[in-house]
Amino acid sequence: MPILVMKFGGTSVATLDRIRRVAKRVGVEVAKGYDVIVIVSAMSGETNKLVGYVEETSPLFDAREYDAVVSSGENVTAGLMALTLQEMDVPARSWQGWQVPLKTTSAHSAARITEIPTDNITQKFAEGMRVAVVAGFQGISPEGRITTLGRGGSDTTAVAFAAAFEAERCDIYTDVDGVYTTDPRICEKARKLDRIAFEEMLELASLGAKVLQTRSVELAMRYKVRLRVLSSFEEQSDEAGTLVCDEEEIMELNVVSGVAHSRDEAKMTLISVADRPGIAAAIFSPLSEAGIHVDMIVQNISEDGRTDMTFSCPVNQVARAEQALEKAKESGSINFHDLVADTGVAKVSVVGIGMRSHTGVAATMFQVLAKEGINIKVITTSEIKISVLIDRKYMELAVQALHDAFELEKAA
Amino acid sequence: MPILVMKFGGTSVATLDRIRRVAKRVGVEVAKGYDVIVIVSAMSGETNKLVGYVEETSPLFDAREYDAVVSSGENVTAGLMALTLQEMDVPARSWQGWQVPLKTTSAHSAARITEIPTDNITQKFAEGMRVAVVAGFQGISPEGRITTLGRGGSDTTAVAFAAAFEAERCDIYTDVDGVYTTDPRICEKARKLDRIAFEEMLELASLGAKVLQTRSVELAMRYKVRLRVLSSFEEQSDEAGTLVCDEEEIMELNVVSGVAHSRDEAKMTLISVADRPGIAAAIFSPLSEAGIHVDMIVQNISEDGRTDMTFSCPVNQVARAEQALEKAKESGSINFHDLVADTGVAKVSVVGIGMRSHTGVAATMFQVLAKEGINIKVITTSEIKISVLIDRKYMELAVQALHDAFELEKAA
Repeated sequence: MPILVMKFGGTSVATLDRIRRVAKRVGVEVAKGYDVIVIVSAMSGETNKLVGYVEETSPLFDAREYDAVVSSGENVTAGLMALTLQEMDVPARSWQGWQVPLKTTSAHSAARITEIPTDNITQKFAEGMRVAVVAGFQGISPEGRITTLGRGGSDTTAVAFAAAFEAERCDIYTDVDGVYTTDPRICEKARKLDRIAFEEMLELASLGAKVLQTRSVELAMRYKVRLRVLSSFEEQSDEAGTLVCDEEEIMELNVVSGVAHSRDEAKMTLISVADRPGIAAAIFSPLSEAGIHVDMIVQNISEDGRTDMTFSCPVNQVARAEQALEKAKESGSINFHDLVADTGVAKVSVVGIGMRSHTGVAATMFQVLAKEGINIKVITTSEIKISVLIDRKYMELAVQALHDAFELEKAA
Repeated sequence: MPILVMKFGGTSVATLDRIRRVAKRVGVEVAKGYDVIVIVSAMSGETNKLVGYVEETSPLFDAREYDAVVSSGENVTAGLMALTLQEMDVPARSWQGWQVPLKTTSAHSAARITEIPTDNITQKFAEGMRVAVVAGFQGISPEGRITTLGRGGSDTTAVAFAAAFEAERCDIYTDVDGVYTTDPRICEKARKLDRIAFEEMLELASLGAKVLQTRSVELAMRYKVRLRVLSSFEEQSDEAGTLVCDEEEIMELNVVSGVAHSRDEAKMTLISVADRPGIAAAIFSPLSEAGIHVDMIVQNISEDGRTDMTFSCPVNQVARAEQALEKAKESGSINFHDLVADTGVAKVSVVGIGMRSHTGVAATMFQVLAKEGINIKVITTSEIKISVLIDRKYMELAVQALHDAFELEKAA
C-alpha cells in the first residue's frame, strides 16, 4: 500500500480532544488506502516545562541529560495517539526514536539524522498495522543515548521518514492553512499558493516565513519529498494547503511567487576600511566567532586604498557585533575610521523561480519602491531572489506595493 | 568500591528543591566511598496525570501503549537527578529501563523482572562515574516494547538492582522514618524498630502496614538484600530508619515484633453447606474467578453431612462475592441455606519470629482481648503470626491493649 507521512505539531495535539480530532484526519487517509506514519510533537507547553526544569536544575546542563528529559513529551503524545486510533478501530502502535531506531550523530540537542532502518515498521505494516505513530524530534546516538534534533526537529523527522519510506507525500499539519504570497497580516490581498517549488520555499523560510523550518525544506528538496503544508484546525480536502514540490510538478512557474519580509534587521557600516587582500576575512571571521548571523554584505568601490564595508545582522546582535569589531581593531587585525549602526531597517524580498528566465524583475522592484518614495539602503540578489534593506517604517508599504505590482493576488 | 542502592519515591522528588535535597543525601554516601545506584519514581502527581490521560483516551487501553505513556515520568526525574548531582560535582548519568537493559516478561503493566545485566553500569563505575540514576518502575520486554512493573514497581526495581549488583544495602527513602511496632496514629506508645526480620516485614506488609510493598520484601528475602527504610524528610545518620534483614543479623529476636491491623474487612458465612469432598474448591473457585481476595477461611465441624463455611474479604468486594456465590448456587455447583455478610469487622494480628520458639503468645492474646470484653469471631495462625477478626469498633482498643501486654514500647 502507498505510504503517507503526516506530522502534527504541539498545538495540534495540545489536548486529548485535539488528538482525537487529528486522529480522525489520520483515519480518513487510512480509509483511502494509505499506510500512514504519523509524527507527533509534545503536547504544547510540555517541552517548555521540561526545558524549564533542566535550566533551573543546571544552567550549563549536560546535553545528554537534557535530551533524555525533554524527549519524554513526544513519547506521551505518541502513546496517546496510538490509543486514540485503536479506539477508532484503526490498527496502530507507537514507536519511540530508539525503537525504530532513528539513528543520529552524537551532537546532543542538535543531532543530525544518519539512518532510518525501515524493516521494523514495514514488517508491522505487512502484518496489518495501518498506522505507525512515531515520537518526533528524537533519536539514538551511536553510544545508545537519547538525542534530540533541535529546532524544527519534528518537521525534519517527518521529512526523513518520508524519504526513508519513499512516501507518496509528507503532510505537515500546522496552525496556518498553507503558504501565502506574503504575510496576510500585512497585506490583505495575500493569496494562498496551491504549489510552490522547493527552492522558493527555502528562500521564503530563510527570509522569515515561519511555516516550515529551513532544515526540513532542505531535506525534502534533497530527497524530492513532496511536502504539503495544511491546517489541522479545518476540515481538509485532497487539494487543501500548499504543496511544496519539485519545480517540474508546477505547470506554470510564477515569475514572482511571494514577497517576504524580516522586521528585526540592523545595518552596520565600517567607514574607511583599509582595503587590502584578506580584509573581508579579517572583518567577518571575528563576527562569525562571536556567533553573529551576518546576512547581506556589500563592499563599496575602493578609493585611495580605503573602502566602506556594509553588512546586515539581527538587531539584537548589534552590541555583540560592535564589541567583536572594536576588539579586532584594538588587536590591529583591522583598521577603520568609524562604525555606524542603523537599527531601524527591515528587509523585503521578492522570490520566484521564474526570475531565472525573466528579466526585469529587479527593475520593476526598484521602480515600485522609488514611486513610493522608499530609499533602498542595500541590495542583494540570488538566482531566484532580490532582497533590499529599507527604513523599517516603510516595510508594510513596500510589501503591499510589491504584491500589487507583481499581481500576486491573481493565480498564475 | 562497595555499592549502595538508594530509592526515592514520588513525594521525595516532587519538586526541584526536593530533588536537590535528596541529591545531597546521595552525595553524603558517595563521600563515604560508595558507588551509588539511585532508583527514582516520577515526580508525585505525574504518573496519575498520565494514567488519567490514558484512561480518558481509551477505557480498555492497550497495556503496551499504557506502559509507553506512564513510564515517561520516571525518565524526567532520572535526567533531572543526574543533572542535579553533576551540579554538585558528583559524576552521574541517567539510565532508562531499556538502556540498562532491565529485562522483563511481556506482561505489560504487571511485568516481572527476568534479568538485570550489570556490565554496562559496572563499566561506567570503573571509568569514574559515581552515581547511576535509574528510572524505576520500567523495563523492556523480549519484543523490545517498554513495560512497567505495576504496584510498588520502583521498590521492586531497587531491590532487584541491589541483588544484581550485590549491593551492601538497599535504602528505601520514603515519607515515614521506619517500621513501627504498630500504627502510631492508633497507639501513641508505638516504637520505631531498629531491625526487623524479612519474614516479619512480609507479614506486616501483607497485613496492611503500608511502608513497603510485599513484592519488594519477598524479593529482598529471596536474595538476602538488606533493606533499610528511612525518611527522606529528615537529616539521617547511619543508624536511622529500620533495617529489614535476615533474622541471623538480629541479636535478640522479639517474641512479638508488631501489632498490625486492617480496618476494611468483611466476614461472610455460608450457612449449612452440604459437606462433601471438593466443596471448598466449589466455593472458592468462583470467588477467585470473580477476583475476590479471600483472606481467612474457617470451616466448622460437620454435622449431619452439613457444615458452615466462613471467610473474610475486603469490605468493598462483598457485593461481588455475593453475586458469584448466588450464581454458583443457581448453577447447582454448591448448595447452602443462607449467606450472611458481616461488614463491620476488622483484623488485628500479632507478628513475631520469636513465636516459633515461644509458646503462649496465642493464649496471652486471647486473654488480653477477653479482659477487654472483645469477642473473637475468627482466628487464623501461621508460624509467626496470629490474626483475629473482631468488631471494628474495638480495633483501636485491641491494638493498644496488645501493644501494652507484649511490652512493645520497650526495646528488646
